[in-house]
Amino acid sequence: MEQRTEIASLGEFGLIDHLTRNNETKNVSTVLGVGDDGAVVDHFGRQTVISTDLLLEGVHFDLMYTPLKHLGYKSVVVNLSDIYAMNATPTQVVLSIGVSNRFSVEALEEFYEGVYAACEKYGVDLVGGDTTSSRIGFIISVTAIGEVAPDAYVKRDGARVNDLICVSGDLGAAFLGLTILEREKKIFQETGAQPDLENRAYIVGRLLKPEARKDVIEYFAEHGIVPTSMMDVSDGLSSDILHICKQSNVGCVLYEDKLPINEESKDFAYKLELDPTACALSGGEDYELLFTVNQQDYEKINANNGFSIIGYITEASAGKTIITRGGNKHELVAQGWNHLK
Amino acid sequence: MEQRTEIASLGEFGLIDHLTRNNETKNVSTVLGVGDDGAVVDHFGRQTVISTDLLLEGVHFDLMYTPLKHLGYKSVVVNLSDIYAMNATPTQVVLSIGVSNRFSVEALEEFYEGVYAACEKYGVDLVGGDTTSSRIGFIISVTAIGEVAPDAYVKRDGARVNDLICVSGDLGAAFLGLTILEREKKIFQETGAQPDLENRAYIVGRLLKPEARKDVIEYFAEHGIVPTSMMDVSDGLSSDILHICKQSNVGCVLYEDKLPINEESKDFAYKLELDPTACALSGGEDYELLFTVNQQDYEKINANNGFSIIGYITEASAGKTIITRGGNKHELVAQGWNHLK
Repeated sequence: MEQRTEIASLGEFGLIDHLTRNNETKNVSTVLGVGDDGAVVDHFGRQTVISTDLLLEGVHFDLMYTPLKHLGYKSVVVNLSDIYAMNATPTQVVLSIGVSNRFSVEALEEFYEGVYAACEKYGVDLVGGDTTSSRIGFIISVTAIGEVAPDAYVKRDGARVNDLICVSGDLGAAFLGLTILEREKKIFQETGAQPDLENRAYIVGRLLKPEARKDVIEYFAEHGIVPTSMMDVSDGLSSDILHICKQSNVGCVLYEDKLPINEESKDFAYKLELDPTACALSGGEDYELLFTVNQQDYEKINANNGFSIIGYITEASAGKTIITRGGNKHELVAQGWNHLK
Repeated sequence: MEQRTEIASLGEFGLIDHLTRNNETKNVSTVLGVGDDGAVVDHFGRQTVISTDLLLEGVHFDLMYTPLKHLGYKSVVVNLSDIYAMNATPTQVVLSIGVSNRFSVEALEEFYEGVYAACEKYGVDLVGGDTTSSRIGFIISVTAIGEVAPDAYVKRDGARVNDLICVSGDLGAAFLGLTILEREKKIFQETGAQPDLENRAYIVGRLLKPEARKDVIEYFAEHGIVPTSMMDVSDGLSSDILHICKQSNVGCVLYEDKLPINEESKDFAYKLELDPTACALSGGEDYELLFTVNQQDYEKINANNGFSIIGYITEASAGKTIITRGGNKHELVAQGWNHLK
């Protein structure tokens, strides 16, 4: 039988001690980690970048189909993605959780296994947090800290006319992964039938265990590329490129046939009679990097086959458009993940 | 009639824009604030201190008697208190909230009024955050960033035998404020009678609108005092001094007659037939600073009548004790605010 230790048997401080007992620091800049009122980070000669996310059960994740270990991993990764999106290197995270007594210590250990796996993979230190009881589901708040050489960070407002619009990886898969999981959940609730994921490992994995594009930032550094603007694709490509256009005061043209979509994504989209382009434009949580570069960087970008050049920046007056395969021009509209609508 | 704007009418990004439209940065180290994937902080030649807290409706606050403006103020202040407890100066905060549609935009504006009031008073910049919908009450996560001269931060593990144990301000009032508010809530629910706070402004204010002890850190700097250990009193004096003893591997003696308790607190405690000493030892959320200093700093500490010297540090083998007014010796036990028990 699986062991179940009640959280109350450890108490808050016992729980923190227990969950952080194997925590080791990896960064020289981590002067002081978990266990005091605050953590201490030393960033002499660098600039500090900070990002934070709040993840709520029933809004951002469904524990019915989200393994806790994956959830812990993803909670860290989505924050690191924001730091990379600034062209910075994450160095520390702080993590707060609110949990009800429906969770056992073993369940939280699984969650932290994922947290530590992400910290290990991305070379960041968990340096603090807060643990509290919740009457109302599982609540996760992560703040990531990163560093960047002075003024080397990349914002959303630097896109200039004729810049190339680029994206790493492929788009829409996480949304399709969510769609299949929601479908199987509904079938299970109605009929009791076990989930049939039809070997959809790629799209399900993109949702449940996303990665942050550390490699992209490293490629930029190695090849002397400084994007003019950048952000991560968390709300959906169309919503996100509109942010860059708004903040840079420019317009854009995207090409439907340039959007990178994985074959498994296309296949499953067709099966559901969904338009793969719509999934790529509006699906969120891909955590790819969307960036613009000056045309003089074309060769360097083109040399990396993990990047797609999907369009270019125009004057603001030219609007924000997408050219379809058939050559038609449509206005881009945000249909991202607006949790508040 | 009061205006009520549905949050959905603004959307997530509209809401962030709306709530941060008057946000101004105050610190030179704030290179980039709200509106990108991350904030950028420049701490050349200083060390960065980070602290985070998660505040949940129904666990940490009750909106039945907590004005939203006070809640916003307190959410920031409790984090700043942790930064001061490191002997550091807070410079930035990031704030994430989860809200359900039971809240109007006006309600959130009230909350942010409090947030900005705290930022203004303590000279910190709000530099980012996350806003999401919640199905499950109001959720607040704050991470504060501070700076400190290299290696000038004060931890919990530096208390040495014969050090003086000191505390700022007075203790137990926030707990008594909570007690009166809970009592009046119960009476209201049972009888509909309006709250009678009996002019208990001090104790109620200590709970609803606490302050962080910036002035204490400033006094230390002016008078060349470096505490050997320090933390803020958030869980209750006995629980907190036991943390210092554990992490410093020492014991302690406290004197009941030295515990600073406000007259209004005493008066109300007696009225409820509570022991004011028990309230001071076990009541949480006072956000005073508990610290130890070398005896050679006695004069400097004694010269500030906002400080109380409440005991001294002993060898670990001597245990953790309190000497009562009657001269009896009792073992100190943690009876702080353990949300998980």
